[in-house]
Amino acid sequence: MQEQPQPGQSVQLPVLAVVGVGLIGGSFAAALRRARAVSRVLGVGRNRQSMQQAISLGLIDAAVSLEQASWEADIIMLALPVGMTQSVLEALRPGLRDNTIITDAGSTKVSVVEAARAALGDRISQFVPGHPIAGAEKSGPEAATTDLYHGRTVVLTPLDENSVDARLRVTRLWEACGARVIVMEPETHDIVLASVSHVPHFLSSVFMWQVATAHNADLRLELAGSGFRDFTRIAAGSPEMWRDIFLANRDAILSEISEVRKALDTAEQALLTADGAQLHDFLERAALARRFWGSRSGLK
Amino acid sequence: MQEQPQPGQSVQLPVLAVVGVGLIGGSFAAALRRARAVSRVLGVGRNRQSMQQAISLGLIDAAVSLEQASWEADIIMLALPVGMTQSVLEALRPGLRDNTIITDAGSTKVSVVEAARAALGDRISQFVPGHPIAGAEKSGPEAATTDLYHGRTVVLTPLDENSVDARLRVTRLWEACGARVIVMEPETHDIVLASVSHVPHFLSSVFMWQVATAHNADLRLELAGSGFRDFTRIAAGSPEMWRDIFLANRDAILSEISEVRKALDTAEQALLTADGAQLHDFLERAALARRFWGSRSGLK
Repeated sequence: MQEQPQPGQSVQLPVLAVVGVGLIGGSFAAALRRARAVSRVLGVGRNRQSMQQAISLGLIDAAVSLEQASWEADIIMLALPVGMTQSVLEALRPGLRDNTIITDAGSTKVSVVEAARAALGDRISQFVPGHPIAGAEKSGPEAATTDLYHGRTVVLTPLDENSVDARLRVTRLWEACGARVIVMEPETHDIVLASVSHVPHFLSSVFMWQVATAHNADLRLELAGSGFRDFTRIAAGSPEMWRDIFLANRDAILSEISEVRKALDTAEQALLTADGAQLHDFLERAALARRFWGSRSGLK
Repeated sequence: MQEQPQPGQSVQLPVLAVVGVGLIGGSFAAALRRARAVSRVLGVGRNRQSMQQAISLGLIDAAVSLEQASWEADIIMLALPVGMTQSVLEALRPGLRDNTIITDAGSTKVSVVEAARAALGDRISQFVPGHPIAGAEKSGPEAATTDLYHGRTVVLTPLDENSVDARLRVTRLWEACGARVIVMEPETHDIVLASVSHVPHFLSSVFMWQVATAHNADLRLELAGSGFRDFTRIAAGSPEMWRDIFLANRDAILSEISEVRKALDTAEQALLTADGAQLHDFLERAALARRFWGSRSGLK
């Protein structure tokens, strides 16, 4: 992370600006510095203390304004709550050079693409939307690591306006972080992520809320064990970030919740009628699917 | 775990029999051997290979039948799917000596107490029901450890018929394992455990089932990340064990699911109306409660 590029290299290597130097943006910067795939790294953030920390940690070389980032950077990564995409892009637009590529790490893509079109206008070809499927319970620059993306999947949802060169430049950067890049439509991305990321977070939060507001919450929480710990871990996540994600991907999330409700109806009916065979089949199907996924995902 | 009691001690120390020598029963045996709180440890199990493994691992001294266990043991621990409680106790009853105490580690207590009353009749005073709040993803004798219960909570739901001495003997054994013992009514235990253990498992399995049976399940599972991993980890658990738990604690679970549905209705309505402030408040309440619990539970 502390390594500097060789003097001879810095002419060709791009200047990277990261807007939002937390876990996601900081790890992107750290991985690219380590891979010597960027020359300077600029950071943009509202919190002075955490920008100072990002400099101390060697994640970025300097803290700059959005305007400075737009003039100086060859690549700009937005690692922000998705609700901030439009206003940040509007601030970046006036200073953008023709060759600068902007990409993002937002958890939803349809709304980000809309925001980008609204903000960038005829410069929309310079925006290549993306989403790394990686994260951790920790946040902030101190949680950033060079290997967060190693072996992980990054989804790009390129626009028709993006040049082949723009797509390739973003792909190469992610590959330099050790990630595998796959491409899909923004709509497909949002439906799939609603299913495997947003709905679990919604349900985990609903459940945690219900337990925490029960009249005997203290007793419940005293007897909560490791299953509870795992099931509710995501409910501890940032309320701001997840509110933005839920609002940005509302339709797909509501549609997936409705599918989960159907499955819940069926399972609950089996319990109500004490149908042990049906309960077992349902639990077994879920258990086998989870074990198979666990054995292949590299995540457990 | 390999340590033998001193020759002079074995006269006073009880003989322990563990019925079901997996993670729960095996760890109980291992912790008590390490604490030198038992002399001999007998194991009962249907699977010869895993009993042999339990002997090799030093968890038990010998594999015996239920009948032998009932004659020889001073303390009998049932570490079984709760649905097996009655038949196992019926097999133990004829050989039981007056001073033998039976306890269990079942995840539900009302149904276990009913099964025990039906099976033991006038020997019900010898059964002290219990439930250690501990577990892990792993199962089987090879997963047993001496410290599984260290710092964990064990709930006892003693019966009016239990003597003070019987309660104390069970309490002391759990304390020798490093656990903290608390006492409550079986009904309270079952409602609280329905909330913080059974319902999360039910919801996690329902969700996993829904994802696994979706038409594009492969794509969904390819993009599933660490949030999905944590939320669904418990869905990989034993279908037999959890079917038994769900059936045994059906009323409390159905009642808690109905409470979770109410919370889901409210949160979903906030999403449907794009009420960002309400969504934020709800997410924040859940996040703060989960973070507070995480900082105090010792589980994360």
